Amino acid sequence: MDLNRFNAQIAFLMEVDRLKNIYRQTYTRVDDLPPMPDGSNVTVPYPRKENDAEHSFSLALFTAILAEYSNEPIDVFKTMKMVLVHDIVEIDAGDTYCYDGEGAKTKADRENRAADRIFGLLPKEQEAEFRGLWEEFEERKTPEARFAAVMDRIQPLLLNLSRDGLSWKEHGIHLSQVQKRNELVKEGSEALSDYIYALLDEANERGILPD
Amino acid sequence: MDLNRFNAQIAFLMEVDRLKNIYRQTYTRVDDLPPMPDGSNVTVPYPRKENDAEHSFSLALFTAILAEYSNEPIDVFKTMKMVLVHDIVEIDAGDTYCYDGEGAKTKADRENRAADRIFGLLPKEQEAEFRGLWEEFEERKTPEARFAAVMDRIQPLLLNLSRDGLSWKEHGIHLSQVQKRNELVKEGSEALSDYIYALLDEANERGILPD
Repeated sequence: MDLNRFNAQIAFLMEVDRLKNIYRQTYTRVDDLPPMPDGSNVTVPYPRKENDAEHSFSLALFTAILAEYSNEPIDVFKTMKMVLVHDIVEIDAGDTYCYDGEGAKTKADRENRAADRIFGLLPKEQEAEFRGLWEEFEERKTPEARFAAVMDRIQPLLLNLSRDGLSWKEHGIHLSQVQKRNELVKEGSEALSDYIYALLDEANERGILPD
Repeated sequence: MDLNRFNAQIAFLMEVDRLKNIYRQTYTRVDDLPPMPDGSNVTVPYPRKENDAEHSFSLALFTAILAEYSNEPIDVFKTMKMVLVHDIVEIDAGDTYCYDGEGAKTKADRENRAADRIFGLLPKEQEAEFRGLWEEFEERKTPEARFAAVMDRIQPLLLNLSRDGLSWKEHGIHLSQVQKRNELVKEGSEALSDYIYALLDEANERGILPD
């Protein structure tokens, strides 16, 4: 075992544990808290928002289950690795809420510096692979990146609908904003785009996403 | 789009969101809570334990980064899918702490019923694939399952060491118990087994894991 290499890998993996502390605007689907194991001192108020580690877990599983709906054939393995690391830069750069226009202006610069530091913990060739996957995700020019973007839209949308649009309400979000944000879904999946837009119309009719 | 098929897939994915409510005995690595985004009403007391979704996220990334240390060549994609679903049965069956002898007696029966219900939400051929991966993980007879078991041991162990053995202390765990529990690591990775046993000796010397 090359200890320098191994220590670099472990340093990266331990650093990424911080994603468990980066909270998003989307709530987890259910409120009910199962009985805590004996000895637990955890109390988590509900409803609670999900964090980036939980979100990334969901995207990886969504990708494994829904890959058949991609417009183009994709390398599912590569797409899963891509979604696992797609939010890692938020450890330094924070979560920029998708409807936050001001935050968006400085997002790219903050995230590039974060990528330098965090992917830079890895051995060189793994840094190249995983930073490359993050950049590919950001650029959205490959079938895998387009489908990963679909997963990144549909997962919070389904959670938010299961909560009757709670995070939309909190931020005063309107139908047209959500429609616009989801325009890129059809680039990755016509089938899922049709499904999402039908759900948005339904949410509008139910009064949880105003015009 | 076959709507019956699609609705079954979404039902499964939404059910699995409950993993975010199943807390384990291992604490997350760091206490520091970054500033909450505006409008957040989340307060999470620290230190806090990690949940199954976070744990599964970590295992998937550990697998992607550390696969080279497997004794035998593995299908990394398959192993990643395996670790993503390896704890899904705990949605119904709960987390059985690894040193809980009483809980272990009823574990298999509780988990099989959970697998029937939860994987049964999927379309038939996906049920077969993912339930098959879970059973393969449990049986530990393939290179992928042996390496997944290594990941499932090393990740909480590293977190626990980064917390100076906090969850061992809470449960009065001794060195010999942890050594015994990790015996199977060498079946999947001699290199990681040597590394883990050296860490355990060091923990014993530091006084955080008594004889």
